[in-house]
Amino acid sequence: MKVYLDNHSATKLDERVFEAMLPYLKDHYGNPQSMHDLGSQTKQAVEVARKQVASLINANENEIYFTSCGSESNNLALKGVALAYKDKKKHIIVSQIEHFSVLNSAKRLQNLGFEVSYIPVDKQGFVLLDELEKSIKENTVLVSVQHSNPEIGTIQDIKKIVEICHKKGVLVHTDAVSSCGVVGIDVKELGVDLLSLSASQFYGPKGAAALYIKEDIRVVPLIDGGVQENGIRAGTENVASIVGMGVAAEIARKELKENSERMLKLRDKLIEEIQAKIEYVYLNGSVEKRLPNNVNFSFEFIEGEGLSLLLNSKGIYVTSGSSCASKNLKMSHVLTAIGVDPAVGQGTITMTLSKYNTKEEIDYVLEVLPELVEKLRTISPLYSYFLQTGQRKPAGPGTEYE
Amino acid sequence: MKVYLDNHSATKLDERVFEAMLPYLKDHYGNPQSMHDLGSQTKQAVEVARKQVASLINANENEIYFTSCGSESNNLALKGVALAYKDKKKHIIVSQIEHFSVLNSAKRLQNLGFEVSYIPVDKQGFVLLDELEKSIKENTVLVSVQHSNPEIGTIQDIKKIVEICHKKGVLVHTDAVSSCGVVGIDVKELGVDLLSLSASQFYGPKGAAALYIKEDIRVVPLIDGGVQENGIRAGTENVASIVGMGVAAEIARKELKENSERMLKLRDKLIEEIQAKIEYVYLNGSVEKRLPNNVNFSFEFIEGEGLSLLLNSKGIYVTSGSSCASKNLKMSHVLTAIGVDPAVGQGTITMTLSKYNTKEEIDYVLEVLPELVEKLRTISPLYSYFLQTGQRKPAGPGTEYE
Repeated sequence: MKVYLDNHSATKLDERVFEAMLPYLKDHYGNPQSMHDLGSQTKQAVEVARKQVASLINANENEIYFTSCGSESNNLALKGVALAYKDKKKHIIVSQIEHFSVLNSAKRLQNLGFEVSYIPVDKQGFVLLDELEKSIKENTVLVSVQHSNPEIGTIQDIKKIVEICHKKGVLVHTDAVSSCGVVGIDVKELGVDLLSLSASQFYGPKGAAALYIKEDIRVVPLIDGGVQENGIRAGTENVASIVGMGVAAEIARKELKENSERMLKLRDKLIEEIQAKIEYVYLNGSVEKRLPNNVNFSFEFIEGEGLSLLLNSKGIYVTSGSSCASKNLKMSHVLTAIGVDPAVGQGTITMTLSKYNTKEEIDYVLEVLPELVEKLRTISPLYSYFLQTGQRKPAGPGTEYE
Repeated sequence: MKVYLDNHSATKLDERVFEAMLPYLKDHYGNPQSMHDLGSQTKQAVEVARKQVASLINANENEIYFTSCGSESNNLALKGVALAYKDKKKHIIVSQIEHFSVLNSAKRLQNLGFEVSYIPVDKQGFVLLDELEKSIKENTVLVSVQHSNPEIGTIQDIKKIVEICHKKGVLVHTDAVSSCGVVGIDVKELGVDLLSLSASQFYGPKGAAALYIKEDIRVVPLIDGGVQENGIRAGTENVASIVGMGVAAEIARKELKENSERMLKLRDKLIEEIQAKIEYVYLNGSVEKRLPNNVNFSFEFIEGEGLSLLLNSKGIYVTSGSSCASKNLKMSHVLTAIGVDPAVGQGTITMTLSKYNTKEEIDYVLEVLPELVEKLRTISPLYSYFLQTGQRKPAGPGTEYE
């Protein structure tokens, strides 16, 4: 049995999305900027997709700008706003647990002379709102806080963050890449000024994403050139992927409730039975305000990388780091920020469900996982020490964290 | 009959490319950065494509960086180099007939405090090498000159430009988007430091392009984030499109000579017979050093937009401006730069051939086009004035241009 539980990294394309993309990969190859019939055809298709994506997040269609990936959307949001308002305000604020495309955009802006504040989070991963409020200054132009964290699943109170920021005239961007299509997102309800989303997170194709930019918010393009995307994002439109994103958004909107409930049941089954079957495991992130498809556990006395490789050999695909940089990290910046002891944090894996996962698959995982954890622990010197002495070496998770 | 002659704007996907992409749209959906089998599978596919693209231009595979479109490649080249060397050198040079993604990147850099020189071209569209050499200063970091112009087809002497620039320690980028896959490109032979190419120009998919960056040349990322593309371009790889680009590059390399010769014959047939059949037409661009698929004529006394719309009604698809901004222009910046009289330049259309065009299609165009030009001229007040008085009103093309 193959069980794919790495749906934050990429999702399987919905068959209906594929069918919708097909004509735009084959016969409808005109450039949407061309004035002839083949151009009009693809231009119209892009505009239909724009409406579909707008509907998913309750935006107006003229507020949707297509990009090539979630990282590009995040870069465009941060750099675009910072550069647009640079003559007046040069301070931006991000949380410590943002995606690398946000954190590294912030670093790039620092290199260009901007000031950046990094706001800490509590042990469940919630941004410390007091700290956020205190860090806002006269020259703060933008706050960027993710809607949910792809690694630990914690869903932020963006509405509250917007309230705090707007009171002081500060714009708010939220990276909703891991939320859109998984939980309901309404930009008007949230009140955000910019929001990133990506098709590859909701059974759409790779190569299409979007940035919502509220009307009247100025953004300097990242990719300058032609008139595409109202001058905000140059480059020939990736028509097939954009069409796919539109249809994926439409499907996500219509089937969101059903999929979400289905995943939630499997998620809770995974969480509960892992906790019941395996000792010394710690669930990271919030229990209540959590993505319905996210499971993140630290397994004490083992390494996440070893566990994910063993799971892989059994046909179970998970991730042992943050997906975009998983080859580079022992313990992620997210686990560090929520205060996980590195000795425990290194034994962490993230499992993200999709609408395709079945109860049978989850049963299989629950059968295999405890055996593998046990297997790894039997060869762990830290575990033998613990069994012999009852002591952790080096210091295990503090009671605070537990 | 349908005749697609707008192949600079977009090409039809090669059936073999589509077949190669299929598995990566359907079952092979893993994120190349994931450490499990589904990730390794797509990672390998991306690396195969990198080799294929490198082969097309005789680069090393570690010098190929995938992007989402030619415009992104051009932006990355200009902004990336400018920002990487900004503490030492802050002057860049571009030609006046570059693509908007180069010109507007240059403008953006001006806005960020860089200095930009715009080098003129001669009446055939060749960059004035004396002017180029004179404009190089102590603090010039980069010269960006396109390999060929998509509108008028003129192919620059990039090797000579590299010689001039390297003598003075200046880096050279060339936008080879309209050349790659159409004419042979060898980065080692040209000696360039950076080169842009795009899959959608050689029967590959939209959504995949690349920037060649010679080893040891520093470039600041446009899209910051994860470790993808060796840290130079973050964002989940658009695997299917990248795989498609690789296969398209492989096919282009193997079939380039044959396709090029075939298109050249049809191009020359078009040029010769249009000149024979229609009065007051002017070929723009070089006759000798010209893309084998490019035809660009100014038809006096008519408007290119009107002509392209009439052609469209007959199933012939051409463009009447530069493709990326065709809805915005009366006469393009390229025609202005080569000194075309606006009264004549407004009657310009570009026809770009593909490997799929047939002799029958070209015969059809040569049958329809003269009739349509005649039709438009009969309703042109400028043409009646000319017929009545033998005078042009306002001033027609100078003898200099003819």
